[in-house]
Amino acid sequence: MSSLQALFSPRSVAVIGASRTPGTIGNAIFNNLIRCGFAGVAYPVNPRAQAVLSVKAWPSIGAVPEPVDLAIIALPAEQVNAAVRECAEAGVQALVVISAGFKEGGGEGAVREAELVEVARGAGMRVVGPNCLGVINADPAVALNATFAPTWPHHGRIGFLTQSGALGVAILDYGLELGLGVSTFVSVGNKADLSANDMLEHWEQDAATDIILLYLESFGNPRKFNKIARRVARRKPVLAVKSGRSAAGSRAASSHTGSLAGVDVAADALFWQTGVLRVDTLEQLFNTAMLLAHQPIPRGPRVAILTNAGGPGILAADACETFGLELPSPSAETQAALRAFLPAEASVANPVDMIASASASSYEQAVRLLLADPAIDSLLVIFVPPIVTHPQEVAEAILRGARGSDKPVLCNFLGTHGIPESLRSLKAGSIVSYAFPETAAISLAQATRYGQWLQRPEGQSVERDDLDAASARAAVEGALRRAAAEDEAVWLAPEEVEAVLRAYGIPTARALTATTPEEAAAAAQRLGFPVAVKLMSETITHKTEVQGVRLGLESPEQVFDAFAGIARRLADRGQADAMAGVVVQEMVTEGVEVILGASLDPAFGPVLMVGLGGIHVELLKDVSVRVHPLHDIDVDEMLGELRALPLLTGYRGQAPADVPALREALLRLDLLVRDLPELVELDINPLKVRAAGQGVIAVDARICVQRTVPRRAPTRRHP
Amino acid sequence: MSSLQALFSPRSVAVIGASRTPGTIGNAIFNNLIRCGFAGVAYPVNPRAQAVLSVKAWPSIGAVPEPVDLAIIALPAEQVNAAVRECAEAGVQALVVISAGFKEGGGEGAVREAELVEVARGAGMRVVGPNCLGVINADPAVALNATFAPTWPHHGRIGFLTQSGALGVAILDYGLELGLGVSTFVSVGNKADLSANDMLEHWEQDAATDIILLYLESFGNPRKFNKIARRVARRKPVLAVKSGRSAAGSRAASSHTGSLAGVDVAADALFWQTGVLRVDTLEQLFNTAMLLAHQPIPRGPRVAILTNAGGPGILAADACETFGLELPSPSAETQAALRAFLPAEASVANPVDMIASASASSYEQAVRLLLADPAIDSLLVIFVPPIVTHPQEVAEAILRGARGSDKPVLCNFLGTHGIPESLRSLKAGSIVSYAFPETAAISLAQATRYGQWLQRPEGQSVERDDLDAASARAAVEGALRRAAAEDEAVWLAPEEVEAVLRAYGIPTARALTATTPEEAAAAAQRLGFPVAVKLMSETITHKTEVQGVRLGLESPEQVFDAFAGIARRLADRGQADAMAGVVVQEMVTEGVEVILGASLDPAFGPVLMVGLGGIHVELLKDVSVRVHPLHDIDVDEMLGELRALPLLTGYRGQAPADVPALREALLRLDLLVRDLPELVELDINPLKVRAAGQGVIAVDARICVQRTVPRRAPTRRHP
Repeated sequence: MSSLQALFSPRSVAVIGASRTPGTIGNAIFNNLIRCGFAGVAYPVNPRAQAVLSVKAWPSIGAVPEPVDLAIIALPAEQVNAAVRECAEAGVQALVVISAGFKEGGGEGAVREAELVEVARGAGMRVVGPNCLGVINADPAVALNATFAPTWPHHGRIGFLTQSGALGVAILDYGLELGLGVSTFVSVGNKADLSANDMLEHWEQDAATDIILLYLESFGNPRKFNKIARRVARRKPVLAVKSGRSAAGSRAASSHTGSLAGVDVAADALFWQTGVLRVDTLEQLFNTAMLLAHQPIPRGPRVAILTNAGGPGILAADACETFGLELPSPSAETQAALRAFLPAEASVANPVDMIASASASSYEQAVRLLLADPAIDSLLVIFVPPIVTHPQEVAEAILRGARGSDKPVLCNFLGTHGIPESLRSLKAGSIVSYAFPETAAISLAQATRYGQWLQRPEGQSVERDDLDAASARAAVEGALRRAAAEDEAVWLAPEEVEAVLRAYGIPTARALTATTPEEAAAAAQRLGFPVAVKLMSETITHKTEVQGVRLGLESPEQVFDAFAGIARRLADRGQADAMAGVVVQEMVTEGVEVILGASLDPAFGPVLMVGLGGIHVELLKDVSVRVHPLHDIDVDEMLGELRALPLLTGYRGQAPADVPALREALLRLDLLVRDLPELVELDINPLKVRAAGQGVIAVDARICVQRTVPRRAPTRRHP
Repeated sequence: MSSLQALFSPRSVAVIGASRTPGTIGNAIFNNLIRCGFAGVAYPVNPRAQAVLSVKAWPSIGAVPEPVDLAIIALPAEQVNAAVRECAEAGVQALVVISAGFKEGGGEGAVREAELVEVARGAGMRVVGPNCLGVINADPAVALNATFAPTWPHHGRIGFLTQSGALGVAILDYGLELGLGVSTFVSVGNKADLSANDMLEHWEQDAATDIILLYLESFGNPRKFNKIARRVARRKPVLAVKSGRSAAGSRAASSHTGSLAGVDVAADALFWQTGVLRVDTLEQLFNTAMLLAHQPIPRGPRVAILTNAGGPGILAADACETFGLELPSPSAETQAALRAFLPAEASVANPVDMIASASASSYEQAVRLLLADPAIDSLLVIFVPPIVTHPQEVAEAILRGARGSDKPVLCNFLGTHGIPESLRSLKAGSIVSYAFPETAAISLAQATRYGQWLQRPEGQSVERDDLDAASARAAVEGALRRAAAEDEAVWLAPEEVEAVLRAYGIPTARALTATTPEEAAAAAQRLGFPVAVKLMSETITHKTEVQGVRLGLESPEQVFDAFAGIARRLADRGQADAMAGVVVQEMVTEGVEVILGASLDPAFGPVLMVGLGGIHVELLKDVSVRVHPLHDIDVDEMLGELRALPLLTGYRGQAPADVPALREALLRLDLLVRDLPELVELDINPLKVRAAGQGVIAVDARICVQRTVPRRAPTRRHP
C-alpha cells in the first residue's frame, strides 16, 4: 500500500498555496508542518513569495528540485485541478486537497471533483479530500501535521477518521485534553478518493494503530463496509459516531417495508452486524476510547463495584444494569476475605461498600481480591474523598491492587477538586478515571458490548446450489422491458413474482391467472377448492382498497361471481381499464403470518426486514432489520429480536411453527437480493409459516425493479 | 414555618462534639462555620476542651449562656440521644444530627432513631438526619455552613437536597466548578424527621429559591409526594436523580400485575405525574439545571440550530430529534433576512449553517433574527473556532443578539481550548455553553419537557357520589376475618370480589355460586345460557392450571357434567378438599379484552396498571402504569400510551370499543384503591370492553387484602 505510505509517511511534503499571511489556511498548514517538527523536507510552493516562514518558496511544484511524496493543496477551488495536473507531471505520489468548492456545493463543483479524481487516479495518486482539514501522523519519527488545526495531538495508538473538518478540530482538542494518543488522523472531507473503507483496511494492517475511531456522516459503499468492518473489528476495536440519524436521511417511503426499515435502524443494524461500536455522542466516543486504549477488553458482563460511599455505588449499579451489565455477588471466598479486614458496617455484596473509613490499603486489598474472583469480569472503583484519606494515595493503591490482572479496571473519583492530580497519576498507570459514576458505567458497558460481539460466533455467508438465477433474471428483464425509461420503477406481474420467488426456493401458493370469469372458474377447478381470487392490475397495487380480493371461495360459481363482481366494481369507479384479469390462488389457511421484505436504501443498499403480520408490523412495529449481505448468524439474531417470536415457537401450548423454514426463506431472500441489483422493493405479505416440518408459503408478494437505481454503489457478486 | 427558620437561618449555632483535632468531623464542621463567616454566633460544645479553633468551648449545651437556635450533633451514636435530651431542655429549636449508627444499620440503631425522633418531636425540634452531611444556607446574610464538606458553594437560587452525604460532597464540588449558585443545601440522611416532602413545601414558599434539585434513593411517603410535587412543580422546576432503579428495589412478584408494574416504571410514572423532571445521570442534573437557572423555560419544542460548521450542526440536530425536539424551517422572512448577509454557500434551513467564514457580526444578526421568528421556540448556537474569528468576540455577539428575547438560548463552543474564557463571559451574561453539541441538545430537550408539562392541563382528582364504600368495606372485613394473623394476605371469595367491584360501579358478569352439580345446573338456568363454570377455591388461585374452567356451556346437563368433571379431576389429584364449589357465570363473548390491575408497591404505595389482554400484556408488555392517586388526565395519558390502543378505537374498520367506559372504570379503580388501604393486589383479567356505548364488564377478577401491609405509609383519605 505504497500510496498510503506516501500519504502518512512522506519523506518530502510540498504545500501548494503556502502563504506568508497569518490567519490564512495556506499559512497555518505550512506553519504546522514546521512547528510540529516534520522529520522530512517541507517545501512551500508560492509563485509570489521568495520565502514562507523563512523557508525558500518555489514558484510551482515542478520547480521543486527534489521528488515530492505528498502535496497539500490549499488554493482557490478553480486553481486546484491545474495544480493537480502539475503534481501528476512532477511525480507527486499523494495529495491532500484542503480547498472547498467541490461536490459539497453540487453543480460545477461536482464536475470539478470528478475531474480531480480522474487526473489523480490516472497518475496513480491517492487523494484525501477535497474540502478537508488534512492529515496527521503523530509518530515522532514522522511528525507530519498537514492540517490547519491549532492542535498537535499526543502520540498514541488511536487511528482517527472524521468526515467533518470542523469536528476534526474539536476532536483533536478534546483528545489532547483527555490525553488520548493518536497514531494517524485523517479528515476525509468529500471522500472523492480515500474513504473510510480504505482507512479501515489501512489501519487493519498498521502496527502503530490499536483502536479506530470514526466520525461518519454517510457510507460510500455500505456493502464493502459490511465486509471490511466485520473483518477489521475482529482484530481491533472500531468505534463510530454516525450522524444524520434524523430526518436528513429519510426518504419518502411508499410501502410498509420502506417506512419500517428506517435509516437509523439500518445504520444500527449495519454497525451491529460488523462489530463496529456505535456510540451516541462525541463524549461517549472519547470516554469509551479511553477505556479501550488503556485496559483489557471485558470478557463478560459481570462487573464488581467497589466504593467507599453508598450513593454513588447505587448510581453506578443502576447505570450498569440499565446498560446491560450484571452485578453478581462476589464468591463466598472473596466475601470472607473482604470481611476479614473491613468493618462490620461494610457491605461485601455488590456494590462492595467499604464505607467512609476505607483506607488506601483497604482499596488495594479489595481491588486485588475482586479481580482475582472468577465470578467477576471487570471492576469499577469509586472514591469519594472523605475528611482524611487522600485521593492520591487511593489512586496509587488501586494501581498496586490491579497490577498483573488481565481484567479491566476503571475509576470514578467523585468531586472535581480531588481529581486532577490523582487522575494524572492514574493515567500514567493506565487506569482511567471518570468524573461521574454513570459515565464510567456507560463506558464499561460499551467496552463490554464489544467484548461480547467478539465472542459472538462470526457466522458465514451462505450459498445454495439450487438457485435458478437465470429464470429470475428473465422475469426481471421481462418487467424492465416494460419500463418507459432507465430510471422508471416497474412492478412485476404476478407470474413474474412467482417465478422469481420459486427460482430462489421460496415456495409460493399455487396460482393461475385468468382474464374472464369462465377462465377463472376453470382455473379454480384445476387448483382445487377453496381458492382466493385477486385482482390483477399494473396500476392498482393496493388491491384491498378497491375490494379486489375474495377469499375462501368454494365452488366454480363463486369464482365466476367473484370475477364479475370485481370487474363491476372497478367499472363503477371508472377504472375498468385497470383490470388485467384475476389471479386464482389456492387458499392457505393454516400457519402464522409473517412479513418478509427487502428494500433498497439509497444510503445502505438493500435492507432486509422480518416481522409477524397484522398488528405486529403495522401497529407494534415489531420488526427486525439488517443490511445486506447477511451471515447466517444475522438471520438467527433477526428472528431472536422479534418480541412476538414466541407466537412462532409455541405460545401457550400452540404447536411450534416451522422456524427453520422461515430462517431458510430469509437467507434465500438475501441471495435473491444479491443477484438482482435492480430490485428496489420486495414484500412477501403474508408468508405463512406452517407447523414444524411443513415449511413456509408466500401467499402474496410484490416486487418492484428499476434499471438504474438511485445513488447505488457498484454491485458485485458476493465472494 | 418557624422550625425550618431555625434550621436554615439560625441566629446561633452550637456544634456538640466540636473537636480540636484536625481531620475529625467535629473539627471540620466547626471550622466550616467559622471559615465561611456564619453571620450569627457559633458555640463549640466540648467538655474536654477550653477552646476549639480559638473559640471558647462549653462543656454542655446547657452551659451555653445564650439561647441556641440550632444544634449540630457530631457525637458517637450512643451519646446522641442524651445530647438531644439536653438540647430539648436547653430550648434548642432545631437539630442536625451528623452521626451515623442509626436506622441505616438496623437493629439497635433503629431503636435509637425512633427514640431520637420521639424526644425531638416532643420538644418541637425539627431534625435533619441522622447520618448526614449537614445543611448550608449560602445567603451571605446568613452564611451557614453546617456541614463537614470541603466546599462552600456560590450563592445562587438553587435548592439542593441529597439523600447521600457522599454525593452531597461531590454535588457541592461540581456545582462550584460549574458556577451553579445554591440557596439552601440539605443532606437529609436517614430522613428520620425532615423529608424531601418537607423541603419541597419549604422551597415552594422560599423566595430565595427558583429551582429545586433532588438526589433521591427512596420515597418516604409517595402519596404525599404525589400531591406536593404536583403543586410545587407548577411554580418552580424540580429536577431529580432517583437511584435504586435496578434489582435493589425489586420484589418477588407473584402475579402478572406485580411483575409488570416494576419499580422503575412506577418511579418514572410518579415523576411524570408530578412534573418532576427525572434525569438519568448526575451530569444531566447539572447540565439541565444550568439551563433552567439562566434561561427562560421553552414554550414549545421547535428549536433552531445556528452553526458555523456542518458536522456539529448535524450532531446537534440528531440529538434534538432523538430527544423529541423539532427543527422546523425558519419562516420565509427570516430566511430572506439571513440570505441578505450570509454567503451563497450558507444554508438558511435548519440547522442554519453560516459556514466557516461567519463573523461575530453574522452571529449577532442571525441570533436576533432567529429569536424573533415566531416559528422558533428556542435557539442552540454552535461555534467551532476557525482560523480567524475569536471565540470571545462571538460569545459577546451572541449575548448582544439575544438581548431582550424571552426565548431560551444555549451554546456549544467546540474544542476545549477555546472555551474557558468565552464560557466565563457567557456565564456573566447568563447564556450557558456546553462542551458537546449533544449535551446541549439533551439539556434543551429536558427543559422543553418541563415546559410541555407546564402546558399540559393540570387535571383534577375525581370523586363519584354513587360509591357504596360500606359494602366494599364489609366484604373486605369479611375476608380479613379469615386471616390467621395481622400480616397474612387473604384472597377474597368470588362473591366478595363482585361486591367490591359493584360497590365502586365496575360492572361484573352476573354469577352465582353452587356447591353441588344440581345447584350449578339450577343457577345456570336462572342466568340463562350460555354460561361459564369456574372452580371456587380458597387455596387454588390459578384455576386454569387444574382444568377448573369450562366455557360456553349451553344446557343444564353440560353444567352438571362440568361440576362433576372438575370435582373428579381434583379428586384424582388428591385435592378434593380444595374445592369449595363452582361459580356459574354468564358468558361475555363480545368485547376487547383488557387487564386492569392495582398492586401495592412497598416503595410507592398503590400502583395502577392497564393493558390489553393476551399477548399484549404477557408477551409484549404493552402496559401503562401510574402511581395512586390519579388525576383524570393521568387516566387519559395511560390509555394514550398503549401501543395497542388502536385495537380499542377501531383498528382496520372494526367498530370502536367503549373507551369512555374503560376510562371510567380506571378512575373508579383509583377511588377503590384510595378507600381500601388493605388492598395488596387486584387483577381484573379480562375486563371486556364492549362496543361504544355498551360499557365494560369484568369477567374475572381477584382481590387480595392484608390488615397490616409492609412498609406502608400512613393512609389518609384523599382530601
